[in-house]
Amino acid sequence: MILSFEDFEPGHFGTFGPRHVTREEIIAFAAEYDPQPMHLDEDAARQSLLKGLAASGWHLCSLMMRMLCDGLLLRSSSLGAPGIEELNWLAPLRPGDDITLDLHVLDKRVSQNRPQLGIVTMRVEIRNASGQKLLEAKWPAMFARRETSAVE
Amino acid sequence: MILSFEDFEPGHFGTFGPRHVTREEIIAFAAEYDPQPMHLDEDAARQSLLKGLAASGWHLCSLMMRMLCDGLLLRSSSLGAPGIEELNWLAPLRPGDDITLDLHVLDKRVSQNRPQLGIVTMRVEIRNASGQKLLEAKWPAMFARRETSAVE
Repeated sequence: MILSFEDFEPGHFGTFGPRHVTREEIIAFAAEYDPQPMHLDEDAARQSLLKGLAASGWHLCSLMMRMLCDGLLLRSSSLGAPGIEELNWLAPLRPGDDITLDLHVLDKRVSQNRPQLGIVTMRVEIRNASGQKLLEAKWPAMFARRETSAVE
Repeated sequence: MILSFEDFEPGHFGTFGPRHVTREEIIAFAAEYDPQPMHLDEDAARQSLLKGLAASGWHLCSLMMRMLCDGLLLRSSSLGAPGIEELNWLAPLRPGDDITLDLHVLDKRVSQNRPQLGIVTMRVEIRNASGQKLLEAKWPAMFARRETSAVE
Protein backbone atom coordinates (compact mmCIF):
# COMPACT_ATOMS: atom_id res chain seq x y z
CA MET A 1 0.00 0.00 0.00
CA ILE A 2 1.17 3.50 -0.84
CA LEU A 3 0.99 5.75 2.22
CA SER A 4 -0.84 9.02 1.58
CA PHE A 5 -1.57 12.13 3.64
CA GLU A 6 -4.56 10.34 5.23
CA ASP A 7 -2.32 7.63 6.71
CA PHE A 8 -0.35 9.93 9.02
CA GLU A 9 -1.54 10.67 12.53
CA PRO A 10 0.22 12.62 15.29
CA GLY A 11 2.48 10.38 17.36
CA HIS A 12 5.48 8.09 16.93
CA PHE A 13 5.44 6.83 13.34
CA GLY A 14 8.30 4.33 13.47
CA THR A 15 11.95 3.49 14.04
CA PHE A 16 14.23 2.94 11.04
CA GLY A 17 17.67 1.37 10.89
CA PRO A 18 20.12 0.54 12.32
CA ARG A 19 22.45 1.78 9.64
CA HIS A 20 26.17 1.04 10.04
CA VAL A 21 28.48 3.94 9.13
CA THR A 22 32.08 3.22 8.17
CA ARG A 23 35.22 5.35 8.43
CA GLU A 24 35.61 5.00 4.66
CA GLU A 25 32.25 6.54 3.85
CA ILE A 26 32.76 9.35 6.40
CA ILE A 27 36.04 10.29 4.72
CA ALA A 28 34.66 9.87 1.18
CA PHE A 29 31.72 12.19 1.86
CA ALA A 30 33.98 14.76 3.54
CA ALA A 31 36.50 14.70 0.69
CA GLU A 32 33.72 15.56 -1.76
CA TYR A 33 31.54 17.98 0.22
CA ASP A 34 33.12 19.06 3.52
CA PRO A 35 36.92 18.75 3.41
CA GLN A 36 37.59 20.20 6.87
CA PRO A 37 40.39 18.42 8.77
CA MET A 38 38.10 17.17 11.58
CA HIS A 39 36.15 15.11 9.04
CA LEU A 40 39.17 13.78 7.10
CA ASP A 41 42.12 13.18 9.37
CA GLU A 42 42.28 11.42 12.76
CA ASP A 43 45.18 13.46 14.15
CA ALA A 44 43.68 16.81 13.17
CA ALA A 45 40.30 15.66 14.46
CA ARG A 46 41.73 14.84 17.91
CA GLN A 47 42.81 18.49 18.25
CA SER A 48 39.36 19.77 17.29
CA LEU A 49 36.22 20.45 19.34
CA LEU A 50 34.95 17.05 18.13
CA LYS A 51 37.86 15.22 19.91
CA GLY A 52 38.22 12.64 17.14
CA LEU A 53 37.19 11.86 13.58
CA ALA A 54 33.51 12.59 13.02
CA ALA A 55 31.23 12.78 10.01
CA SER A 56 30.22 16.05 8.40
CA GLY A 57 26.86 17.22 9.71
CA TRP A 58 25.66 17.22 6.11
CA HIS A 59 26.66 13.58 5.80
CA LEU A 60 24.42 12.78 8.75
CA CYS A 61 21.60 14.75 7.09
CA SER A 62 22.11 12.79 3.88
CA LEU A 63 22.05 9.48 5.78
CA MET A 64 18.86 10.67 7.50
CA MET A 65 17.31 11.22 4.07
CA ARG A 66 18.32 7.74 2.91
CA MET A 67 16.87 6.14 6.04
CA LEU A 68 13.63 8.10 5.52
CA CYS A 69 13.48 6.99 1.86
CA ASP A 70 13.96 3.34 2.78
CA GLY A 71 11.70 3.44 5.82
CA LEU A 72 8.85 5.53 4.48
CA LEU A 73 9.14 7.86 1.51
CA LEU A 74 9.63 5.30 -1.28
CA ARG A 75 6.31 3.65 -0.31
CA SER A 76 4.46 6.94 0.08
CA SER A 77 2.92 9.73 -1.99
CA SER A 78 5.75 12.05 -0.87
CA LEU A 79 6.02 15.33 -2.78
CA GLY A 80 9.15 16.62 -1.07
CA ALA A 81 9.57 19.44 1.43
CA PRO A 82 9.92 23.21 1.09
CA GLY A 83 12.58 23.47 3.79
CA ILE A 84 13.78 22.68 7.29
CA GLU A 85 12.35 24.53 10.28
CA GLU A 86 14.89 23.36 12.84
CA LEU A 87 17.97 21.15 12.77
CA ASN A 88 20.48 20.47 15.55
CA TRP A 89 23.66 18.44 15.51
CA LEU A 90 23.92 17.28 19.12
CA ALA A 91 26.83 14.82 19.17
CA PRO A 92 29.39 13.58 16.65
CA LEU A 93 28.72 10.66 14.29
CA ARG A 94 31.78 8.41 14.71
CA PRO A 95 33.30 5.75 12.45
CA GLY A 96 31.65 2.39 13.17
CA ASP A 97 28.48 3.86 14.71
CA ASP A 98 25.17 2.13 14.09
CA ILE A 99 22.49 4.78 13.84
CA THR A 100 18.74 4.52 14.38
CA LEU A 101 16.11 7.05 13.32
CA ASP A 102 12.85 7.77 15.14
CA LEU A 103 10.16 9.53 13.16
CA HIS A 104 7.36 11.41 14.89
CA VAL A 105 4.39 13.17 13.30
CA LEU A 106 3.71 16.46 15.11
CA ASP A 107 0.66 17.61 13.16
CA LYS A 108 -0.97 17.59 9.71
CA ARG A 109 -3.08 19.91 7.61
CA VAL A 110 -4.40 20.21 4.07
CA SER A 111 -2.57 22.82 1.99
CA GLN A 112 -4.64 25.96 1.47
CA ASN A 113 -3.06 26.81 -1.89
CA ARG A 114 -3.00 23.27 -3.24
CA PRO A 115 -5.85 21.24 -1.70
CA GLN A 116 -4.70 18.10 -3.53
CA LEU A 117 -1.82 17.85 -1.09
CA GLY A 118 -1.34 17.84 2.64
CA ILE A 119 1.46 18.95 4.89
CA VAL A 120 2.70 16.65 7.65
CA THR A 121 5.06 18.18 10.21
CA MET A 122 7.77 15.61 10.87
CA ARG A 123 10.19 15.39 13.76
CA VAL A 124 13.25 13.16 13.44
CA GLU A 125 15.72 12.02 16.07
CA ILE A 126 18.83 10.00 15.25
CA ARG A 127 20.68 8.07 17.95
CA ASN A 128 23.80 5.93 18.05
CA ALA A 129 23.86 2.41 19.52
CA SER A 130 24.48 3.83 23.03
CA GLY A 131 21.25 5.81 22.78
CA GLN A 132 23.06 9.16 22.51
CA LYS A 133 21.09 11.63 20.42
CA LEU A 134 23.14 12.83 17.42
CA LEU A 135 20.59 14.89 15.50
CA GLU A 136 17.11 16.27 15.82
CA ALA A 137 15.21 17.99 13.04
CA LYS A 138 11.74 19.24 12.21
CA TRP A 139 10.20 20.09 8.86
CA PRO A 140 6.95 20.20 6.89
CA ALA A 141 6.71 17.24 4.48
CA MET A 142 4.23 17.31 1.60
CA PHE A 143 2.18 14.23 0.64
CA ALA A 144 -0.52 13.79 -2.00
CA ARG A 145 -4.00 13.11 -0.67
CA ARG A 146 -5.73 9.86 -1.54
CA GLU A 147 -9.15 11.42 -1.84
CA THR A 148 -9.26 14.71 -3.71
CA SER A 149 -12.76 15.75 -4.65
CA ALA A 150 -13.70 18.28 -7.34
CA VAL A 151 -15.51 20.27 -4.65
CA GLU A 152 -12.27 21.67 -3.23
CA MET B 1 45.95 34.90 6.78
CA ILE B 2 43.64 32.70 8.83
CA LEU B 3 40.28 34.42 9.34
CA SER B 4 39.15 34.48 12.97
CA PHE B 5 36.05 35.67 14.79
CA GLU B 6 37.45 39.23 14.81
CA ASP B 7 37.51 39.35 10.99
CA PHE B 8 33.74 39.07 10.49
CA GLU B 9 31.55 42.15 10.42
CA PRO B 10 27.84 42.40 9.65
CA GLY B 11 27.22 42.80 5.91
CA HIS B 12 27.87 40.99 2.64
CA PHE B 13 30.96 38.81 3.16
CA GLY B 14 31.48 37.54 -0.38
CA THR B 15 30.28 35.63 -3.44
CA PHE B 16 31.62 32.13 -4.08
CA GLY B 17 31.46 30.02 -7.23
CA PRO B 18 30.18 29.54 -9.86
CA ARG B 19 30.09 25.79 -9.43
CA HIS B 20 28.88 23.70 -12.38
CA VAL B 21 26.57 20.81 -11.47
CA THR B 22 26.25 17.85 -13.84
CA ARG B 23 23.42 15.38 -14.40
CA GLU B 24 25.82 12.58 -13.46
CA GLU B 25 26.58 13.98 -10.01
CA ILE B 26 22.90 14.73 -9.35
CA ILE B 27 22.00 11.11 -10.09
CA ALA B 28 25.02 9.70 -8.20
CA PHE B 29 24.14 11.64 -5.04
CA ALA B 30 20.48 10.66 -5.29
CA ALA B 31 21.31 6.97 -5.82
CA GLU B 32 23.30 6.99 -2.58
CA TYR B 33 21.29 9.28 -0.32
CA ASP B 34 17.90 10.25 -1.78
CA PRO B 35 16.70 7.64 -4.29
CA GLN B 36 13.31 9.22 -5.02
CA PRO B 37 12.25 9.03 -8.67
CA MET B 38 12.28 12.83 -9.20
CA HIS B 39 16.01 12.89 -8.46
CA LEU B 40 16.93 9.79 -10.50
CA ASP B 41 14.78 9.48 -13.60
CA GLU B 42 13.86 12.13 -16.17
CA ASP B 43 10.46 10.63 -17.08
CA ALA B 44 9.36 10.20 -13.48
CA ALA B 45 10.67 13.69 -12.68
CA ARG B 46 8.55 15.26 -15.44
CA GLN B 47 5.42 13.92 -13.70
CA SER B 48 6.50 15.31 -10.33
CA LEU B 49 5.97 18.71 -8.69
CA LEU B 50 9.54 19.54 -9.81
CA LYS B 51 8.55 19.19 -13.54
CA GLY B 52 11.89 17.66 -14.50
CA LEU B 53 15.03 16.08 -13.06
CA ALA B 54 16.30 18.04 -10.07
CA ALA B 55 18.93 17.48 -7.40
CA SER B 56 18.07 16.29 -3.90
CA GLY B 57 17.76 19.22 -1.52
CA TRP B 58 20.46 17.56 0.58
CA HIS B 59 22.76 17.50 -2.43
CA LEU B 60 22.34 21.27 -2.73
CA CYS B 61 23.11 21.60 1.01
CA SER B 62 26.24 19.48 0.55
CA LEU B 63 27.35 21.62 -2.41
CA MET B 64 26.72 24.71 -0.27
CA MET B 65 29.07 23.27 2.36
CA ARG B 66 31.76 22.59 -0.24
CA MET B 67 31.49 26.12 -1.62
CA LEU B 68 31.73 27.52 1.92
CA CYS B 69 34.80 25.35 2.63
CA ASP B 70 36.56 26.50 -0.55
CA GLY B 71 35.48 30.13 -0.23
CA LEU B 72 36.00 30.67 3.49
CA LEU B 73 36.12 27.87 6.04
CA LEU B 74 39.39 26.21 5.02
CA ARG B 75 41.21 29.53 5.56
CA SER B 76 39.45 30.30 8.84
CA SER B 77 39.42 29.27 12.48
CA SER B 78 36.03 27.56 11.92
CA LEU B 79 34.86 25.29 14.73
CA GLY B 80 31.71 24.02 13.06
CA ALA B 81 28.09 24.81 13.80
CA PRO B 82 25.57 23.45 16.32
CA GLY B 83 22.70 23.43 13.85
CA ILE B 84 20.60 25.22 11.26
CA GLU B 85 18.05 27.82 12.27
CA GLU B 86 16.27 28.13 8.94
CA LEU B 87 16.64 26.50 5.53
CA ASN B 88 14.41 26.86 2.48
CA TRP B 89 14.59 25.13 -0.88
CA LEU B 90 13.05 27.74 -3.21
CA ALA B 91 13.57 26.35 -6.71
CA PRO B 92 14.99 23.13 -8.22
CA LEU B 93 18.70 22.65 -8.92
CA ARG B 94 18.78 21.37 -12.53
CA PRO B 95 21.41 19.38 -14.45
CA GLY B 96 23.90 21.80 -16.01
CA ASP B 97 23.19 24.68 -13.63
CA ASP B 98 26.04 26.93 -12.55
CA ILE B 99 25.42 27.99 -8.96
CA THR B 100 26.73 30.97 -7.04
CA LEU B 101 26.67 31.45 -3.28
CA ASP B 102 26.31 34.77 -1.44
CA LEU B 103 27.38 34.82 2.18
CA HIS B 104 26.12 37.49 4.56
CA VAL B 105 27.06 38.02 8.19
CA LEU B 106 23.97 38.96 10.22
CA ASP B 107 25.57 39.43 13.63
CA LYS B 108 28.34 38.16 15.92
CA ARG B 109 28.87 37.62 19.62
CA VAL B 110 31.35 35.99 21.96
CA SER B 111 30.16 32.69 23.42
CA GLN B 112 29.13 33.02 27.06
CA ASN B 113 30.01 29.42 27.94
CA ARG B 114 33.24 29.28 25.97
CA PRO B 115 34.82 32.77 25.75
CA GLN B 116 37.63 31.44 23.56
CA LEU B 117 35.14 31.21 20.69
CA GLY B 118 32.66 33.48 18.97
CA ILE B 119 29.42 32.85 17.16
CA VAL B 120 28.83 34.46 13.76
CA THR B 121 25.28 34.26 12.41
CA MET B 122 25.57 33.46 8.71
CA ARG B 123 22.99 33.84 5.98
CA VAL B 124 23.52 32.07 2.68
CA GLU B 125 21.72 32.46 -0.63
CA ILE B 126 22.40 30.23 -3.63
CA ARG B 127 21.34 31.29 -7.13
CA ASN B 128 21.53 29.71 -10.57
CA ALA B 129 23.01 31.51 -13.58
CA SER B 130 19.64 33.17 -14.30
CA GLY B 131 19.69 34.76 -10.85
CA GLN B 132 16.85 32.56 -9.56
CA LYS B 133 17.23 31.87 -5.85
CA LEU B 134 17.46 28.12 -5.16
CA LEU B 135 18.22 28.05 -1.45
CA GLU B 136 18.43 30.33 1.55
CA ALA B 137 19.70 29.30 4.95
CA LYS B 138 20.71 30.82 8.27
CA TRP B 139 22.81 29.36 11.07
CA PRO B 140 25.21 30.19 13.89
CA ALA B 141 28.81 29.38 12.89
CA MET B 142 31.51 29.07 15.55
CA PHE B 143 34.99 30.53 15.06
CA ALA B 144 37.98 30.64 17.42
CA ARG B 145 39.00 34.12 18.60
CA ARG B 146 42.43 35.46 17.74
CA GLU B 147 42.89 37.30 21.00
CA THR B 148 41.82 35.34 24.07
CA SER B 149 43.03 36.88 27.27
CA ALA B 150 43.25 35.17 30.66
CA VAL B 151 40.92 37.85 32.01
CA GLU B 152 37.87 36.22 30.45
